[in-house]
Amino acid sequence: MAPDIASLFGGSLLLAWQLKNKRVLIVGGGDVASGRIESVLVADALITLIAPRAGLHSLTKSFIETSDRITYYDRTFAGSSDLVGVDMVLTAIDDVESSREICNLCRTLKIPVNVADIPPSCDFYFGSQIRSGPLQIMISTNGQSPKLANIIRRRIENNLPDNVGEAIEKVGMLRSKLRERAPGVGGELGKRRMRWMVDVCTSWEMEELAMLDDEMMAQLLDDGWEHNAVPKPQELGAQSKPTRSVSTMSEKIPVNFLLPASAGFIAGAACVAFALLSRRS
Amino acid sequence: MAPDIASLFGGSLLLAWQLKNKRVLIVGGGDVASGRIESVLVADALITLIAPRAGLHSLTKSFIETSDRITYYDRTFAGSSDLVGVDMVLTAIDDVESSREICNLCRTLKIPVNVADIPPSCDFYFGSQIRSGPLQIMISTNGQSPKLANIIRRRIENNLPDNVGEAIEKVGMLRSKLRERAPGVGGELGKRRMRWMVDVCTSWEMEELAMLDDEMMAQLLDDGWEHNAVPKPQELGAQSKPTRSVSTMSEKIPVNFLLPASAGFIAGAACVAFALLSRRS
Repeated sequence: MAPDIASLFGGSLLLAWQLKNKRVLIVGGGDVASGRIESVLVADALITLIAPRAGLHSLTKSFIETSDRITYYDRTFAGSSDLVGVDMVLTAIDDVESSREICNLCRTLKIPVNVADIPPSCDFYFGSQIRSGPLQIMISTNGQSPKLANIIRRRIENNLPDNVGEAIEKVGMLRSKLRERAPGVGGELGKRRMRWMVDVCTSWEMEELAMLDDEMMAQLLDDGWEHNAVPKPQELGAQSKPTRSVSTMSEKIPVNFLLPASAGFIAGAACVAFALLSRRS
Repeated sequence: MAPDIASLFGGSLLLAWQLKNKRVLIVGGGDVASGRIESVLVADALITLIAPRAGLHSLTKSFIETSDRITYYDRTFAGSSDLVGVDMVLTAIDDVESSREICNLCRTLKIPVNVADIPPSCDFYFGSQIRSGPLQIMISTNGQSPKLANIIRRRIENNLPDNVGEAIEKVGMLRSKLRERAPGVGGELGKRRMRWMVDVCTSWEMEELAMLDDEMMAQLLDDGWEHNAVPKPQELGAQSKPTRSVSTMSEKIPVNFLLPASAGFIAGAACVAFALLSRRS
């Protein structure tokens, strides 16, 4: 069904920007800049950091000391020569005039830019983020309420399975192994590969996927893919069956279900016992 | 504490790209393209759509018919002349050679580009997304498992409060009203405004925030902001107090706690009654 065209407005285009081996210029070294450095390092970028040493946040200092992907200059922004070969610019400085100058230069050179705290000078915003291994989640309220974005982020974080990042990593490895075993792009084989991977993801629990090791993956491909089936983890004779089946069960009957049920049982039993025994005497 | 530098790799930079009144070229009109059109309309962009009419998906057709922000050309991509004045390019066509040509032109012209199904030709990827009013959430597994991204998206969606989008909208309106009442950028006043908004967001439930109307907002600012306090919704004498207090309670004692407890009570009562009564006879 076509979505209501009148409801399609007021948002952003959420993207996962690719920065592997791209050069990102960060101007500023304070609190906000240190967060930017972390996000950009996660994305495998090379960083040029321009900020007077006196104003560096302790986290920024530690990033400069420990990462070999940061080239640091102890000075302020020097003009367009600082933008040569740069793929993205993030500024986080208090100097509004200098921020605007950097933004204008970037716009002329068509370099994507974010100027902290000056929305009109931003090609993109950052949202509240969660990361667990290869999993990344962004929550944006499109500037309406950063605090609610944070509250929602925590809520989502608390509801994610503990091992979600590991599960995704293992599924990624299984996919690579499957592509090695049954290579080729597109076509019927590609579709069959996709269907089988979907079947694995839907018939195994997240924590079962997280436990996949090399041996289990090989067996899953032998017993499963080759026979167009998806055996359960138990059928693969995995070592840690008992642990897994317990945790699988605890997912299906959550602890907060079992606890009140037994408390209720005891309360019910006590009440009736009391009523009947007191009638007797 | 500084994050472990060795763990900072393998991800993307998640962004909320701003497209208000920007021009986005979409090449292709099939299933994938129709999804792109929807996402780009949400971001308030102007769309140029190039695709032979014969291959249009029904959703794409309906977008062309109903949106005044789409300029449609019934033909294939015609070269660099199609890229004049374009701020972003998304292609979703089966022709790999043409896709690569478009990507190369975009790279030369420094126009951000996404070519569906050809990751090396993408400056950015799309993830699994949720939208509720001004709230947008993106889930990316960085290409490891689109299926798990979908499973996680559904899980998050099911756990979000029903009225989360409305709550964010209302808080955004309250913020604007507060800025009108106590205007000025930065400084002590800016900090006080921010603290008060945080207090409102943390001391009211999401569904209480969603119920804010013009009158309640005015009263909240009069009784709250002016006295440096955050009155509870009940203290504002809102009309629908009973509904609200019930639903607030049901948030604190969730239904899946009450149900098993009472089932347990009945089971316990029945067991003891049976035991005692059968001993009697």
